[in-house]
Amino acid sequence: MSLQKLHDSILQGDRIALGKAITLAESKLPEHQSEVEELLEAVMPFCGKSIRIGITGIPGVGKSTFIESFGNYLIKEENRKIAVLAVDPSSSISKGSILGDKTRMENLSKNENAFIRASPSTGTLGGVSSGTRETILLCEAAGFDTIFIETVGVGQSETAVYSMVDFMLLLLLPGAGDELQGMKRGIVELADLIAINKSDGDNLQKAKIAQAAYRQALHLFPAKENDWQPEVVLCSSLSGEGIDLIWNKIKSYEIFSKDNNSFFEKRKRQNVHWMKEILFKLVFEKYSQNPDLKAQLTNKEKLVAAGKMSVLKAARELMENIN
Amino acid sequence: MSLQKLHDSILQGDRIALGKAITLAESKLPEHQSEVEELLEAVMPFCGKSIRIGITGIPGVGKSTFIESFGNYLIKEENRKIAVLAVDPSSSISKGSILGDKTRMENLSKNENAFIRASPSTGTLGGVSSGTRETILLCEAAGFDTIFIETVGVGQSETAVYSMVDFMLLLLLPGAGDELQGMKRGIVELADLIAINKSDGDNLQKAKIAQAAYRQALHLFPAKENDWQPEVVLCSSLSGEGIDLIWNKIKSYEIFSKDNNSFFEKRKRQNVHWMKEILFKLVFEKYSQNPDLKAQLTNKEKLVAAGKMSVLKAARELMENIN
Repeated sequence: MSLQKLHDSILQGDRIALGKAITLAESKLPEHQSEVEELLEAVMPFCGKSIRIGITGIPGVGKSTFIESFGNYLIKEENRKIAVLAVDPSSSISKGSILGDKTRMENLSKNENAFIRASPSTGTLGGVSSGTRETILLCEAAGFDTIFIETVGVGQSETAVYSMVDFMLLLLLPGAGDELQGMKRGIVELADLIAINKSDGDNLQKAKIAQAAYRQALHLFPAKENDWQPEVVLCSSLSGEGIDLIWNKIKSYEIFSKDNNSFFEKRKRQNVHWMKEILFKLVFEKYSQNPDLKAQLTNKEKLVAAGKMSVLKAARELMENIN
Repeated sequence: MSLQKLHDSILQGDRIALGKAITLAESKLPEHQSEVEELLEAVMPFCGKSIRIGITGIPGVGKSTFIESFGNYLIKEENRKIAVLAVDPSSSISKGSILGDKTRMENLSKNENAFIRASPSTGTLGGVSSGTRETILLCEAAGFDTIFIETVGVGQSETAVYSMVDFMLLLLLPGAGDELQGMKRGIVELADLIAINKSDGDNLQKAKIAQAAYRQALHLFPAKENDWQPEVVLCSSLSGEGIDLIWNKIKSYEIFSKDNNSFFEKRKRQNVHWMKEILFKLVFEKYSQNPDLKAQLTNKEKLVAAGKMSVLKAARELMENIN
């Protein structure tokens, strides 16, 4: 498919073309990278019009069931078009689950107003999947107005996702024992909304206790830069209870942050940050081709492997001897 | 404290000196970095004699209770000296828990044969805490012969930890529902031993079922490069059941991998990998100082923030216009 055809098909919302373009964006081949650059430059006027929502939480919190339920609600009740992206290898929609659960997001994946994609995170810099930001833009160009970016809530990928989204939703489980201990400040600080999932049936009482505990905990955090007040809500992907409330909170956030301009300022900062990351990668790729470096690298590798030189010294000497 | 004094005190096992040296290793100041380099060069003959054990598992699996139990056992029964390091913000021994659990590893932290330290993971490259490898070497120089490196088992930090340790222990919970789905191939593939923690009381039956399931699952994985066969064992940090078995497996691994030389080959590869990582960082730091780049960066930042140029194009043009 020519680049022009790919461009036209994406703008028409053709999901096969979208899939192909994303594959290009994830590729490391220089020719693919320049094609993606050209493509993104061309579709730029059609990008940026979605709301980008990060969804995070530990394994078992029910992220994929939640996304299925939330996504179907938004398509049916709010006439939205949903793209779901996963950014790390442990995300529930990525491949590789031991017990390969075939029913994950079964309804959503069949819906013509939904698009689901797992990005590989191999070869990333600082936890950022190369290709995820490009994928967001491509999905927007294809007409998806609601982008979910799913990640596992216990590591560095949150910070990476935070640098890509407008809004962070943290899913937690009812009951505040082990999980509260495992869940760290850093993750909670990033959240714009906390939803206690599986708040149904026998869990409801525990969920209310957890809600009170997290509300208390939120008071311990400094105010958000944009003055937004994160809240703690209950929801059930099973019964659908609370799903509409979560959407209302996200809509409120959008209005609030566009009113005080923080929505747009955040996106600007994110773009500058992204540019520096790519530059970082390009710089190293260029340096790696330096013939002086290549020759000395082999020598230093031998010394380091044999324990005859410390790693720090070897790296510094390599750096000093090349131009 | 002079560098010479620091050096002497560390070799005498002085933990205050050790703590100071680790703080230097975690520092980003160039003068501290060169001090650490000098220090590590000097203590190098005394390093590398420990067994380095990565311990991973999701929040709630009981990592800190396990480490407390395992550590105390090794000190009492095996006369070992234990250093416990955490490498990511979600590790249970790092700071920042919402409910700040003061009892974590209380006994172990008071024991004179144990040393516990959480490394910040901010400013890392590809999930590697800058300073953790240096910290391992410093702990070895101070006489610790068993190094635990704790991480949360669901993200990129596993790969980083894998590149620092001799042996990876994966802790899992009894019951194979949500967790099996959340736990991904990538993490299991890294494990040299799987231990199902909390295998006591009412959990015992569930634990045995999970053990059988994981044993089955392990058959699906390709053989390890060094021919080691990972096993699945049961343990209880509470009763101490299985703790000695885990140590026996680790000892067997050490003998096995030293016999076939894979132990030493792995460490060599790890050092070369580490050297390249540092080089990566140094290269970028040097480039960031380039005056051409600095001037153009400001200009490109404006274009990108204003949405007048795509990020990919801006980064590439920056790269092309500098030498």
